[in-house]
Amino acid sequence: MDRERLQRVRQAMADAGLDALVCRLPENIVMLSGHWPLIGWSFLLFPRDGKPTLVTPHCDEREARSELWEAAVRPFLFGVLAGGDPFTAIQALLKEAAEPGWRRIGYEGSFETVAPAWNAAEGAVPAAVTHAMLQQCFGEDNLVDATGLLLSQRACKTDGEAAKLRRANEIAAIGLRTFHDLVAPGVTGIELVTAVESAIMRQGTGYQGARRVRAFAQVATGAEETSIGYRPMEISTGRPLADGELALLELAVVVDGYWSDRTRVRVAGTPTETQRRLHALIRQAQEAAIAAANPGVTAGEVDEAARRVIRDGGYGDAFIHVTGHGLGFKYHEPSPTLLPRSEERLRIGMVTSVEPGIYLPEMGGIRIEENILITETGAEVLGPAPKELC
Amino acid sequence: MDRERLQRVRQAMADAGLDALVCRLPENIVMLSGHWPLIGWSFLLFPRDGKPTLVTPHCDEREARSELWEAAVRPFLFGVLAGGDPFTAIQALLKEAAEPGWRRIGYEGSFETVAPAWNAAEGAVPAAVTHAMLQQCFGEDNLVDATGLLLSQRACKTDGEAAKLRRANEIAAIGLRTFHDLVAPGVTGIELVTAVESAIMRQGTGYQGARRVRAFAQVATGAEETSIGYRPMEISTGRPLADGELALLELAVVVDGYWSDRTRVRVAGTPTETQRRLHALIRQAQEAAIAAANPGVTAGEVDEAARRVIRDGGYGDAFIHVTGHGLGFKYHEPSPTLLPRSEERLRIGMVTSVEPGIYLPEMGGIRIEENILITETGAEVLGPAPKELC
Repeated sequence: MDRERLQRVRQAMADAGLDALVCRLPENIVMLSGHWPLIGWSFLLFPRDGKPTLVTPHCDEREARSELWEAAVRPFLFGVLAGGDPFTAIQALLKEAAEPGWRRIGYEGSFETVAPAWNAAEGAVPAAVTHAMLQQCFGEDNLVDATGLLLSQRACKTDGEAAKLRRANEIAAIGLRTFHDLVAPGVTGIELVTAVESAIMRQGTGYQGARRVRAFAQVATGAEETSIGYRPMEISTGRPLADGELALLELAVVVDGYWSDRTRVRVAGTPTETQRRLHALIRQAQEAAIAAANPGVTAGEVDEAARRVIRDGGYGDAFIHVTGHGLGFKYHEPSPTLLPRSEERLRIGMVTSVEPGIYLPEMGGIRIEENILITETGAEVLGPAPKELC
Repeated sequence: MDRERLQRVRQAMADAGLDALVCRLPENIVMLSGHWPLIGWSFLLFPRDGKPTLVTPHCDEREARSELWEAAVRPFLFGVLAGGDPFTAIQALLKEAAEPGWRRIGYEGSFETVAPAWNAAEGAVPAAVTHAMLQQCFGEDNLVDATGLLLSQRACKTDGEAAKLRRANEIAAIGLRTFHDLVAPGVTGIELVTAVESAIMRQGTGYQGARRVRAFAQVATGAEETSIGYRPMEISTGRPLADGELALLELAVVVDGYWSDRTRVRVAGTPTETQRRLHALIRQAQEAAIAAANPGVTAGEVDEAARRVIRDGGYGDAFIHVTGHGLGFKYHEPSPTLLPRSEERLRIGMVTSVEPGIYLPEMGGIRIEENILITETGAEVLGPAPKELC
């Protein structure tokens, strides 16, 4: 049980005057209960005082009981003819678990981006039907949008959560090493994607007890494709890499509900002098940002540490995005965001990406991305892995 | 351009008195525009009369222009420091594209389950922030929840959409053949998952021009795991299959925005007499349902055709779920649903899964799942593939 997490959330609820939280998104349920739901049809009722209740599809009950810290489990029949409408069952069970005296119940009103469930082929999210059901359960005037509270809770990880993110990044590193080994002339982006994903899922499943591992790799190849490779929306093709071409891997990995976000770039065959020089510059910028990332320092200062190196190297205009973003319960999280002039201060337990990049139409894109944990003494790079260009 | 689709949607909008639709979910945008957005930050404004407008991240512009049938493209800077808050940019561009006289604009209010975007590691969905922005754009009282209209449009596919689903299922069949070839004693669920996904992505990319292919496989192994394998929420493990054990593959595939949902079951080594008998019974039930699936027939009659075979075989109680569900723009869609006593009539262009199954604690689960298209003369099985037990 992550007592530290439970204590922090309960304190935040007390400060906000909330009697309970009710969550449907797997990314919030795992933080509040220890259980990462298999699909998005579990609801967690988390009171400020007392034991939470997980209302869950019966086919997730076994997994839930093996993961939950402490919660009453209330299964309903799901996916079978005998089950009927899930909302009817969920509403009855939530109502039964609620205290009549509650006046302020926080819900997930404004999650515009969401992490997928374990079965990433279909997400379930709280839309109008969920909202109407919650109003029925708790009273129309008693619902409070708790998106801000939940996101701010997610910004600083507990020691237990940091350990989960370290494991996720060590598993991601398996894929980074595979990419490192395989980039060569004649290999395609799709071949690299599938090799990286396979290595992560095969070697990662069972690693330090990891049960559910999935990788989402995208590999842009060549100057044109990698030069817009700052977006997490690459198209990996079946075109073989030519000698001297760049391959840029954007990699998301989820391990039992905890996310990693990493990037590597390699050259097939022999790099040009420019590629070598800019790759060295990016490494130096990344190292400067990591060295600057200490508790109490502002996000703007860390950004500037990386940006100064690239500017001094003559490529300031080509570093067009933020230096990093929070993550952990999802691929991207808002706190912290390392960007110019941000006055948000880094705190112990924050996890952020550090991903300076340079994008030039004629050469392509070069970015290296690590995930770091802010500790008392500075930054810990989670799941270190090789980052050579060739 | 899919003129048939545009005509149908415009007729439905006229019937519902809608002046325009505004969509954010990739699954609806692809139907209305031909473009499958890379991430969930594109908005499509689709007027009943006149040309649609796609408001899109600038980094998706090239892909959009290569796919769109006809639409004005209004890019905004995304993912770069120069961009600022995306909602501000989106709101301004939507407002500019809107006609001042519009009084009823349909939006995606009640999509509780959603298809992932191309980058399946993070979804973007319309929550309270989107809703407030649309109210700002179009006026609070002018927004109408068009979820029902959109879902009912999706039920019957046009010829063009059916061709896309045929291709998606032919690509899925690559994975089914891989599974067919690899199940054997000593092989693990995770090895099967990664082999199936890799084969689909490597051989599927470029197949009949397919650009963006992703597979989501889950393989349950052994009696205990497969006996609850009617849920799309398997956990694939690193445990090797023993001789005589079942492996059940649940497979979702997306090809340029069009979805397939297939299942196969195989025995490692030598099957038992019971496994053989029940597998034959399931095949027979599936064939009966496919033969019964004609335009004008009710969904309940098709369900009964499969259910009768299983009941007569003595296993009626073990077939605990529906015979099939609609799909195509998403992994699962509500229309049609093949279940007992349903009076929904099958129509030409409907696509449905046909997936009878038997689940017994001592033996495990056996299910075979095909996707069929309802045509004038009956049902076409999309992307046929072997379905032998061993």
